[in-house]
Amino acid sequence: MWPIGNLGLLDEADLRSRGLRIPLDAIWGPDGGGLGGAVVNLGGCTASFVSADGLIVTNHHCAFGAISRNSTDENNLIENGFVAATRADELPGKGMTATVPLRFTDVTDRVTADLPVDELERIRAVERRESEIVAECEAVPNRRCETARFNDGVPYLPLPAGAPTGVRRFVLVEAIELRDVRLVAAPPRSVGEFGGEVDNWHWPRHTGDYSILRAYVAPDGTPAEYAGENVPYRPERFLPVSADGIGPADLVMVMGYPYATERYQTAAEIAEAQEWYYPLRLELFGAWIDQMEDASSASEQAAILIAPMLKSIHNARSHARGLLAALDRSGLLERRRSEERAFRAWAAGDPARARAVEALDGIAAVLGEREASRDRDLLLRFMPRGSQALGFAWTIVKWAIERPKADLDREPGFQDRDEETVRRSFRSAADSFEPEADRRNLALFLHRAAALPEGRRSAALDDLLGPDRSDAAIEALTRRLYAGTALGDVETRLAMLGRPIEALRASEDPLIRFVLGLAEEFDGRIERAKRFDERLADLRPRYVAGLAAFRGRSLYPDANATLRLTVGGVRGYAPADGAVYTPFTTLAGIVEKETGEEPFASPANVLGAIRRGDRGRWEDPRLGDVPVCFLADVDTTGGNSGSPAIDGSGRLVGLLFDGVWEDLSGDYTYNPVTSRSILVDVRYILWHLDRVLGAAHLLREMGIE
Amino acid sequence: MWPIGNLGLLDEADLRSRGLRIPLDAIWGPDGGGLGGAVVNLGGCTASFVSADGLIVTNHHCAFGAISRNSTDENNLIENGFVAATRADELPGKGMTATVPLRFTDVTDRVTADLPVDELERIRAVERRESEIVAECEAVPNRRCETARFNDGVPYLPLPAGAPTGVRRFVLVEAIELRDVRLVAAPPRSVGEFGGEVDNWHWPRHTGDYSILRAYVAPDGTPAEYAGENVPYRPERFLPVSADGIGPADLVMVMGYPYATERYQTAAEIAEAQEWYYPLRLELFGAWIDQMEDASSASEQAAILIAPMLKSIHNARSHARGLLAALDRSGLLERRRSEERAFRAWAAGDPARARAVEALDGIAAVLGEREASRDRDLLLRFMPRGSQALGFAWTIVKWAIERPKADLDREPGFQDRDEETVRRSFRSAADSFEPEADRRNLALFLHRAAALPEGRRSAALDDLLGPDRSDAAIEALTRRLYAGTALGDVETRLAMLGRPIEALRASEDPLIRFVLGLAEEFDGRIERAKRFDERLADLRPRYVAGLAAFRGRSLYPDANATLRLTVGGVRGYAPADGAVYTPFTTLAGIVEKETGEEPFASPANVLGAIRRGDRGRWEDPRLGDVPVCFLADVDTTGGNSGSPAIDGSGRLVGLLFDGVWEDLSGDYTYNPVTSRSILVDVRYILWHLDRVLGAAHLLREMGIE
Repeated sequence: MWPIGNLGLLDEADLRSRGLRIPLDAIWGPDGGGLGGAVVNLGGCTASFVSADGLIVTNHHCAFGAISRNSTDENNLIENGFVAATRADELPGKGMTATVPLRFTDVTDRVTADLPVDELERIRAVERRESEIVAECEAVPNRRCETARFNDGVPYLPLPAGAPTGVRRFVLVEAIELRDVRLVAAPPRSVGEFGGEVDNWHWPRHTGDYSILRAYVAPDGTPAEYAGENVPYRPERFLPVSADGIGPADLVMVMGYPYATERYQTAAEIAEAQEWYYPLRLELFGAWIDQMEDASSASEQAAILIAPMLKSIHNARSHARGLLAALDRSGLLERRRSEERAFRAWAAGDPARARAVEALDGIAAVLGEREASRDRDLLLRFMPRGSQALGFAWTIVKWAIERPKADLDREPGFQDRDEETVRRSFRSAADSFEPEADRRNLALFLHRAAALPEGRRSAALDDLLGPDRSDAAIEALTRRLYAGTALGDVETRLAMLGRPIEALRASEDPLIRFVLGLAEEFDGRIERAKRFDERLADLRPRYVAGLAAFRGRSLYPDANATLRLTVGGVRGYAPADGAVYTPFTTLAGIVEKETGEEPFASPANVLGAIRRGDRGRWEDPRLGDVPVCFLADVDTTGGNSGSPAIDGSGRLVGLLFDGVWEDLSGDYTYNPVTSRSILVDVRYILWHLDRVLGAAHLLREMGIE
Repeated sequence: MWPIGNLGLLDEADLRSRGLRIPLDAIWGPDGGGLGGAVVNLGGCTASFVSADGLIVTNHHCAFGAISRNSTDENNLIENGFVAATRADELPGKGMTATVPLRFTDVTDRVTADLPVDELERIRAVERRESEIVAECEAVPNRRCETARFNDGVPYLPLPAGAPTGVRRFVLVEAIELRDVRLVAAPPRSVGEFGGEVDNWHWPRHTGDYSILRAYVAPDGTPAEYAGENVPYRPERFLPVSADGIGPADLVMVMGYPYATERYQTAAEIAEAQEWYYPLRLELFGAWIDQMEDASSASEQAAILIAPMLKSIHNARSHARGLLAALDRSGLLERRRSEERAFRAWAAGDPARARAVEALDGIAAVLGEREASRDRDLLLRFMPRGSQALGFAWTIVKWAIERPKADLDREPGFQDRDEETVRRSFRSAADSFEPEADRRNLALFLHRAAALPEGRRSAALDDLLGPDRSDAAIEALTRRLYAGTALGDVETRLAMLGRPIEALRASEDPLIRFVLGLAEEFDGRIERAKRFDERLADLRPRYVAGLAAFRGRSLYPDANATLRLTVGGVRGYAPADGAVYTPFTTLAGIVEKETGEEPFASPANVLGAIRRGDRGRWEDPRLGDVPVCFLADVDTTGGNSGSPAIDGSGRLVGLLFDGVWEDLSGDYTYNPVTSRSILVDVRYILWHLDRVLGAAHLLREMGIE
């Protein structure tokens, strides 16, 4: 996960010998402007430009919201798929945005100069300075800016000579936010999600997880909301699309915005994850799923509304289960413990190294302190997610608390610039809010919070619940809250956002009143988390700088949603003793899996084209068939969904869409034996557009005749 | 599945080039006496001698009954495993027998000369002549004889010049039946069934499916029932055990007693299997399993008694499901249809070939007639299996019907020679008879028989049920039958076996009375089946002789529990697009699968030995570990369980114990791409005996120091 701003860390000669045929500067030069400029952040996914007229490719699941929001009773685009015959037929993205990277600037000095000693003040100072920097940056019209924190202290950009190491670093990311991103083409779910939850996280895979979008701007070329007069955006850079694809062992490079990794966790932190955090998630999500499945059976309407959250919790549980098993199998904890022993021995007696060992011990001390509140804080964190209504109430209350402060002193997420995002989320929640399921989720979390042992419970919640913390009392309380609240209504919640705290205190809405009683607790949780994180962020760079010296090689910073490049090869792996996964799947495999029942029910036109051998020019002669998906040993994680994979010449050869089960511990450690990403082969996308959908105009636009 | 009596069909030079280092005559010579003589039939499984003192190896699941019958509350051998420290500690097999092959003689002429024209008389004549031949053969003391039918007409032994082709063939199999077979060693179920139902039929596999037995005879060397004075049997031939095992692509040969294949089914027959027979089994077994699982939850005692039948029905359902999917995938039906079109074209206009085409048409006509009674007959067939009590009653009644006839005129299974087998089964059923589950099974079958459409139901059953065929009436009827019957008691049912029909007619036992009412229907079903089979057996050899000429190569007879040799190689396969199964698994894979919970809960001593790297001399240097199981592309089926696999020098290198899911249609067609057998590697057996169980005395006896 090399920082796109620091590709000089890579051994270019070695990459040339492995198949790189363009200079690394062509990916991201000292002044930006390389192929990386074609790689955009699509609300948490990655996407890339593939034509001069702003055509974008990403995963089907990354555009799922837009596909869903454009579906009607008459034409369900999720089931039927969609191809815009002309540009006029391209559908509004309804909330989809694409952020195009422009420039990265190290702002560490400005953020960290003369920080106050007091811990909480320090956090606020950092946040204030980040906000100032962002505000200044956004003074340029149509600029969208963000600071990225590198809490491991590993630099994202080349460090000037003499710059200190072992300190947390900050980088300003300047970008353009395109707010009119339209839906151009998407396969039906039976292609885009072929294999569904059954195949999720698993190879062999036959999923056509792609969609095609287009960015639009105002006629003057500036970013604008959706409008009829808008014109296609003309990106500075777009990726050429390869019609030839890629073969086994070929070099492959993936660019994207991976969210987060945990590569520099200490043994103590890994032990906490393995023994407390993931086991608890596994169990909690299980109960949550049971409840939502039960609620889904109430009506078809309920099932539709609940589906998105249910799917996401299902994925999260599945992830926790696999991660635990993978962590266990990986032996990482024991390896890290043994590395730390060697590290301590290496540092012993050298005062210059002692600082790193002190940091290692300091991290363990923070965990020890955090232990007392961790169960309660985890429940408080999930409560406003499980109960969307509680989430609305909390956002409204917190908005009222923050609003009187100067804009830059407010909590991130509650500044003027965030208002539109919040209002959008309040509106779009109408598509997923099911009051009874929502209420039961709240009851679930309250029940668990109430069942924590004495001294570990939330005092505020104890006060709100009163002496009777029985299931029946919680059931009655939540019924009362949901019967009385008006926050389920979109206009009501929009109207309440922005009301001053006094007005809220006078409100009769029982959920608002309930949350007012919890506000300090919610704030307290955030503050606790910030304090602990701040202490860890202060300690970790010192530890990691020591680790880099101890290991004697360049490190890359943990993923933090900044643009990264990972380089690998097309490569299978052995998922188990006695079995090998080969790196490509083919159309024949779709027919093999076909059962006619979801999630293995391909459209008739796909099956027909496969059965009559209509492979067009997309067949790989080595496979004797059209490739569908492939495996690569690139280093990726969540956020890389939709990432373009390019070959040694910089041509698009696939889209990343999943990882593999055997590598679920990948966020903690890269393992050359099992770290694999699953990509949809560009030839399958082109085959589907060409032989199945007949979308020749899109192929032409991508330069393929 | 080459006939052991006709190995001249094989291309010995070709086999030599593939690694055969012994003459084929050393496997079975013209006068018998080769390595095949070491291969015994163990009540439906295959087993083989591996020492001069009658030591036998077979699968764990083949000795499961004996292991179970020797288990006590204090020492559950299923859970704990067993090793006899000395010969005196070897445990009685309690019903286990081993049949040692001596000689094969073609008796076709004698059985088929001047058969009556009338179909039913012809069957009886054939049965009578078979019985006569068997009786003459068994006049030699301690000889056990059987005739094997080759209903496809493909010869098991070299045909004398001028012998007719296109006729059903009969072979007399002379053998010795050893009736004192003792349990010497067995791994605990957690090794012998590692992976259980989850891994059943699947690769990768890590199952130590082996057990060790020993045959005993009277001090004078003649077969005898278990007795303290008995001495170890000294077999004429035993297999040398290889300590070196086998490697990828090596030649491997498997000998055994495969029950039945259907390699010469016509397209019409395959269509019937695919569209009626297996779908019906699938559904019926599902209902049966649900019921038995429900009954198992009544008490631990019930669960133990029900377990063997439940396991067998589970396997059968799983088999039906996979077989249907595999048949579908195999495209066999379409291939056979297309072959038949070519065959008809080839035969057209040639009167000598017309006979074969007439036979093909004749087979289709038989199926057409059989259709009217097939649902009812299937239920009647399963009824006395599902209800063991009904089975006892039917055996007792049928015995009384047959007994007045001359011994050789009786139905097979009801002759004097069969009495001891029947009595043994009446006794051993005590270990699996659970009255309430048994009653519910009867109700299930009666319910289904009663629900058949008018005209397809059994008239006799309609009479017995009366006008009220409701669930409640059937429930009441079965409760009455089971409340009143005394057949659940071992001594009672043994005492009733042999009572004349008049005595039974006077019996108050309601189940006996019920079965008396059904006797004609049961007999009718058997007679119908015989008539149809007789007609098919008359037609098929003519069709198959034509097919052999059409295909222009030697055929092998369908499996029929006679001794066969199959030759192949150690070879993996591709189970699906994007995946490859490699041919060996290793100890490391056991740890990978280990969850600590059944069926992946290895004994501590196995895990300990693996974790401390205690591989002894059993490591394969190519694998860097001890092999556990391997795949081979030999051609096998049910009955081959426990079959010895020998290398090119005739040394034992493994025991066959399963097939693979992707080849469940293997009984209908051998497919070089997916036809694989799963074998436990002899080195895993030896490692387990040596490093885990410390059974050095057994290794020494097998010639391994």
